Amino acid sequence: MKIFNYKTVSEKQLQKLFGRTSINTEKVGALVKPIVEDVKKNGDKAVLKYAKKFDGLLGNSVRATALELTTAEKKLDMATKTAINTAAKNIERFHLKQKPLSYSIETMPGVNCRRRHLPIENVGLYIPGGSAVLVSTMLMLGIPAKIAGCKRVIVSSPTQGNEIHPALAYAAKICRVKEFYKVGGAHAIAMMSYGTKSIKKVDKILGPGNQFVTTAKTIVSNDPDGCTIDMPSGPSEVLIIADEFANPAYVASDLLAQAEHGADSQVILLTSSAKLANETVKEISEQIKVLPRKELVKQSINSSFIMVVPTIYKAIKLSNNYAPEHLILNLKNAEKYVSQITNAGSVFIGAFSPESVGDYASGTNHSLPTYGYAKSIGGVSVESFMKPITFQKLTRNGLKKISSTVIQLAETEKLDAHANSVRVRLKNGN
Amino acid sequence: MKIFNYKTVSEKQLQKLFGRTSINTEKVGALVKPIVEDVKKNGDKAVLKYAKKFDGLLGNSVRATALELTTAEKKLDMATKTAINTAAKNIERFHLKQKPLSYSIETMPGVNCRRRHLPIENVGLYIPGGSAVLVSTMLMLGIPAKIAGCKRVIVSSPTQGNEIHPALAYAAKICRVKEFYKVGGAHAIAMMSYGTKSIKKVDKILGPGNQFVTTAKTIVSNDPDGCTIDMPSGPSEVLIIADEFANPAYVASDLLAQAEHGADSQVILLTSSAKLANETVKEISEQIKVLPRKELVKQSINSSFIMVVPTIYKAIKLSNNYAPEHLILNLKNAEKYVSQITNAGSVFIGAFSPESVGDYASGTNHSLPTYGYAKSIGGVSVESFMKPITFQKLTRNGLKKISSTVIQLAETEKLDAHANSVRVRLKNGN
Repeated sequence: MKIFNYKTVSEKQLQKLFGRTSINTEKVGALVKPIVEDVKKNGDKAVLKYAKKFDGLLGNSVRATALELTTAEKKLDMATKTAINTAAKNIERFHLKQKPLSYSIETMPGVNCRRRHLPIENVGLYIPGGSAVLVSTMLMLGIPAKIAGCKRVIVSSPTQGNEIHPALAYAAKICRVKEFYKVGGAHAIAMMSYGTKSIKKVDKILGPGNQFVTTAKTIVSNDPDGCTIDMPSGPSEVLIIADEFANPAYVASDLLAQAEHGADSQVILLTSSAKLANETVKEISEQIKVLPRKELVKQSINSSFIMVVPTIYKAIKLSNNYAPEHLILNLKNAEKYVSQITNAGSVFIGAFSPESVGDYASGTNHSLPTYGYAKSIGGVSVESFMKPITFQKLTRNGLKKISSTVIQLAETEKLDAHANSVRVRLKNGN
Repeated sequence: MKIFNYKTVSEKQLQKLFGRTSINTEKVGALVKPIVEDVKKNGDKAVLKYAKKFDGLLGNSVRATALELTTAEKKLDMATKTAINTAAKNIERFHLKQKPLSYSIETMPGVNCRRRHLPIENVGLYIPGGSAVLVSTMLMLGIPAKIAGCKRVIVSSPTQGNEIHPALAYAAKICRVKEFYKVGGAHAIAMMSYGTKSIKKVDKILGPGNQFVTTAKTIVSNDPDGCTIDMPSGPSEVLIIADEFANPAYVASDLLAQAEHGADSQVILLTSSAKLANETVKEISEQIKVLPRKELVKQSINSSFIMVVPTIYKAIKLSNNYAPEHLILNLKNAEKYVSQITNAGSVFIGAFSPESVGDYASGTNHSLPTYGYAKSIGGVSVESFMKPITFQKLTRNGLKKISSTVIQLAETEKLDAHANSVRVRLKNGN
């Protein structure tokens, strides 16, 4: 990992270092679009074709039977079951506090206005398969959906060798998921978004994925026949701010944890201590030796960087500007700096808060904004599975009271029929 | 307006009637994309070029001076000023209740988790110009932004003949907007999204617009160099559910109010009374006579429809499936049906709640989801101008307590470096 010094880095270099590589949408889109369109047009038949081709599906049904799910779930060992239970309990505790409250007020006498949050009725969760089973993602999406009260929650996840991983089946059961599809990739997104003869379409799709999945999500979210999505997801990111009191072994372990997500992971350390910077590099080369994913980790570590900054204040400014998905404050007085954070997905405060606790079990959600989207959106929450509806109810007198305001503004905007809909009601009795 | 009977309409016809016309993205995209790319690449120069070409801008500055804004605002007549003040007060009262609360809990002993909502720092509001000045939209976006506490709120709105409308200038002042650009269309969206040498980029763009603006918003929101947006906006919609007790004059006036928004407006009446259906048609032809926008209204009324339904329950089912932007319940016992509404942007309850009160002054927001997006998203709110950040802070003992859970799950997902970042902290003291 290369070490830079903020004082000797040009503005241009700085921009390059903090720059993100984005998906080549044209290239990936050219591959993904025909698949999405095929599924939109040909439904079940197309889904089955791609599931056999890409997901190694056996048989002729993409939907897992109840027996399949129960059989898988029963194979789970006790230690993993206990871990899933503990994580689920913490996630539930944290997310329960997010359920939005309804309210009702009189903005004027006789003018009653309300807001209620209702669950999104049909929700599709995408759980990536690929190199490992993401049981934690099942919990991070399924638990808020359950708290929100979504009527129908379906899951799509590619299986390896046609069998659902016991841990995933168990996590799905905890989240009360009954509709489980053994499908991954762009065709899974299209299947949920447009629906088929046998599968009812969903109103929203949530969940991470590779560039094919992300591109498919973008395509369906731009199509009014499709559905909305949580957010576009890019490579995972961590930015660590550490001072001279930080333990380099801890810092190195956090950098490596992020790096193992993939070769394109973004891993950044900003520190006020040149000594820590050097020691962290040494620690990385020690710790990396025993990692099974060593080669992949090396790739992403090599494209990452450490920067020595003059002050912690400067580090926070750089971080706010970058808006990392994960931000670790490995600082002696970490709490002191918390109020200065303006842009980040999830923040880990102090030496004993590694990112991995948030990835699995502290209770916060791990579906977080990448690409700098933390400047304007937050991670997945109970609200992600609900939508607010507003209501107003006026009495005859309420309408009378507000009428001159409405008529005046409608006339300013030259919308006479708008003014008229008030006038006509004032003329008659009922 | 054509009257259908639900009992004699085929499933296919039903789908067609409730179908929405979407933007021809390829056609509009071909026009908009070069403009967006030009502004992204050439900044100020390109913006000025398009502002002169499309917005009739005079002079060489797209930004309104403080003097320009004050001069315009001072020209406002007292009646309009009073109306704006009343509307603003109601909107503020309703939206103040939306400010999300922070919270902090221990999910486990020593595992502290928090969530805080922070304002989005840089926000761009798009206020359409076109045929009329949309002073109400300025309030509907500017007031929630002010309540959220956004640091910098900029406005872009095309002026007619280079002069800012007094009402718009006054509404902007109320919302404490100081950065005002006299630019409209796709280039305005690109200007705010990417920024230029003289204009700092924003993190999110909100506001309605025609198909060029909407397409530009989609383009920048799909580009990681761009910014996020509120929602894609389509033609405005109203669905009215009325029974035999409804006054046909009221129903007709609401249909006409929606129709005057544009030739592509969606206007639907579902009623349990064939008599009301016929009387409403008669009322429409009476009321339309005096409307200045008669020709436009006729166009959209002609492509709209009335359907006689067997029961109000059936009407609500159809409405939930359509998910209208605006839903008017002109029913004797309207309140009784409110809890059955699952998908709608804003709901107007009873005979004295015309849509126009919500458009201007009741207090609810008029920036609402079209295209059926009400199934998964709500209208603009204070939360639209904020983003949640989560935090966690573990003590040494907290980490110890949660460690086996994290390590177990990390190993299930084959993420050894994740497990390691916990292990390394348990080994040493600090």
